[in-house]
Amino acid sequence: LRNKHTASPVNIFTVMTNLARQENAYNLSQGLPDYPIASELSELLREAVTEGFNQYAPMQGLVPLRENISCTLNDRYNTGFCSPDTVTITPGATYGIYTAFAAIIEKGDEVIYLEPAFDCYLPAIEINGGVPVSVTLESHNNFAIDWEKIQNAISAKTKAVLINTPHNPTGYVWSQNDWDQLAAIIDGRDIYVVSDEVYDSIVFDGQRHIPGFLQPLFNDKIISIYSFGKAFHITGWKVGYCVASKAITEAFRSIHQYLTFSVNTPAQYALAKYLELYDAGEAGRTLQVKRNLLIDGLKPSPLRPLATSAGTYFQLYDYSAISDLNDVEFAQWLTTEHKVATIPLSAFYKTLQKDRIVRFCFAKKDEVIETATSILRHIR
Amino acid sequence: LRNKHTASPVNIFTVMTNLARQENAYNLSQGLPDYPIASELSELLREAVTEGFNQYAPMQGLVPLRENISCTLNDRYNTGFCSPDTVTITPGATYGIYTAFAAIIEKGDEVIYLEPAFDCYLPAIEINGGVPVSVTLESHNNFAIDWEKIQNAISAKTKAVLINTPHNPTGYVWSQNDWDQLAAIIDGRDIYVVSDEVYDSIVFDGQRHIPGFLQPLFNDKIISIYSFGKAFHITGWKVGYCVASKAITEAFRSIHQYLTFSVNTPAQYALAKYLELYDAGEAGRTLQVKRNLLIDGLKPSPLRPLATSAGTYFQLYDYSAISDLNDVEFAQWLTTEHKVATIPLSAFYKTLQKDRIVRFCFAKKDEVIETATSILRHIR
Ligand SMILES: CSCCC(=O)C(=O)O
Ligand SMILES: CSCCC(=O)C(=O)O
Repeated sequence: LRNKHTASPVNIFTVMTNLARQENAYNLSQGLPDYPIASELSELLREAVTEGFNQYAPMQGLVPLRENISCTLNDRYNTGFCSPDTVTITPGATYGIYTAFAAIIEKGDEVIYLEPAFDCYLPAIEINGGVPVSVTLESHNNFAIDWEKIQNAISAKTKAVLINTPHNPTGYVWSQNDWDQLAAIIDGRDIYVVSDEVYDSIVFDGQRHIPGFLQPLFNDKIISIYSFGKAFHITGWKVGYCVASKAITEAFRSIHQYLTFSVNTPAQYALAKYLELYDAGEAGRTLQVKRNLLIDGLKPSPLRPLATSAGTYFQLYDYSAISDLNDVEFAQWLTTEHKVATIPLSAFYKTLQKDRIVRFCFAKKDEVIETATSILRHIR
Repeated sequence: LRNKHTASPVNIFTVMTNLARQENAYNLSQGLPDYPIASELSELLREAVTEGFNQYAPMQGLVPLRENISCTLNDRYNTGFCSPDTVTITPGATYGIYTAFAAIIEKGDEVIYLEPAFDCYLPAIEINGGVPVSVTLESHNNFAIDWEKIQNAISAKTKAVLINTPHNPTGYVWSQNDWDQLAAIIDGRDIYVVSDEVYDSIVFDGQRHIPGFLQPLFNDKIISIYSFGKAFHITGWKVGYCVASKAITEAFRSIHQYLTFSVNTPAQYALAKYLELYDAGEAGRTLQVKRNLLIDGLKPSPLRPLATSAGTYFQLYDYSAISDLNDVEFAQWLTTEHKVATIPLSAFYKTLQKDRIVRFCFAKKDEVIETATSILRHIR
């Protein structure tokens, strides 16, 4: 059997989490909270079971869940774009991205994506027969989006652009100007946008997330991908959703209903009810405190933060003052020798990088961040 | 956006269940139990939540779940084939079938499948760039497998054969002779077998299910697909698993980890523990009683059963003594006029069939089967 993609056969998050477990290390690698979830959410999942919500949901998702998502988004963004017909429940956001490309890509179509890039992007494009065209953003330039490079990457074969805001691993949050620049480039062309917005509710310092589906110049050409796993700290529930025009939603569902049909019903039931009582600001506030704990804890260390994370679970650090090892070796060394697991920036590129940069996940218990930073402060 | 497959944009199970709901009909259509699940299973899902199993599982599935599946299968079939390295947890069996083809098919490869066929087969092949080659079994011949037709369907482009036992909708269970016939046909060729065995634990009258992965002539070429949804009457949990050689499992996981990454953790936790205490014969016994209730209830009716179902949730009936409507019209008429929902046999073929046959699902409360059959007895 031929490899269907050029990504690693076992992904870096699996490798590092296994190594962390084996070494009994503080795990600041995989984006996976280690603190308890909201008690209401646990209670609602128990209620789903007790009430007997154990059979197939409709393939689009439970009606009350799609209704509550629509209302939440329409309220939050002061729009009428969302309705149960533009929302589809998925078994997680990785699946949403894959299925979007399954709906969009014809063999040989090019898809532009920006590096550093989350590791499922490349295989999602390749397995579906697409040709990934990467636009590499430069670390020494703080990963500023290079619009000219994107413009130059466009060809007659470009079928889609894949973007991510808030951005994993840089923590950059797109401004309206970024959206306008993208709109200017694809305006008048038959190009779709797949927009990974799984960290939409995890933004800091008064920033606002601007969703892709709101952009008037291409809101009939975009599919925005979300994750309850990140928003509610329940990565293991594997429930996300997509928002797109009715036409794109129909194409998406026509794949989805034959790819997996429907999503875990008890979790959908619990999430539908939780959307009626959750505190929308909680995730951002909680994670901002944790981000600050990490940054403050590492101030006295030789590690140098790149741009302060404005969203996501993550903060990048330059370790060149400590080590000449490449980032993959450094991440392994840090895990085995100092019992702090991290993700090398190279995991977000197709080829090994020369940067001396790693990513720390701060979606961890305060004690874990405190102990890990105190270890990191003493590394020389 | 081009249609990626030639199946219906909204599948028949969705259409009929919606119609049943709208008409407040007894729903003998979609294969979806309406009775409560085992109380231990509910209890264990509640325990998973209480114990805090809410974050990403490993991409292959929780270790205790894969271990307990392996032990269960090795014991049941007196083999040592299964191990945690040959078992992968999936978000349902529909997904397992799709992902198997994503791993196997190159554009233009032919996949042989038998009609009548479950409705996700055709799109799973087509979306992945394969060419479906159907071998149609004849109703007047009780859908006997026509080995010569299968032999003749093989070409230089044949990459895989898709089979299903116990069979939806006929209720036929493959004998060892069937497996031997298939082995003889593909022996020495580079042909894979995708084997849908989601009803493996629902067999009647002392029959035994024979799993594909046990067949020595091609156990390095087969991927067997299973579903906890059917085995434990929890179709909405959306957890299944695949069993295959280590090499095929590696290829499968290399797609799976980038397609959806991992499966609902609370459900995996509950299922791992449930496998240590469940009653292996329960599903078959329960459903056999319900099958008999349906068949006995319809004996005085003009509906004529085809071969008695030896497994699955389903029994086929010929309605030609009642109506000249085609099967799709008849299913609608029965639902709207008589408040009993059913699935037309045409749903299992690419083209509308001339047979006057519908499928009844007997995975329903005894009262529902009794009331529905008493209605059906009086239709003229
Ligand atoms: C799908 S596992 C990776 C989790 C994650 O989002 C990350 O660590 O970036
Ligand atoms: C995936 S919905 C169909 C359920 C089922 O297995 C059937 O009714 O045949």
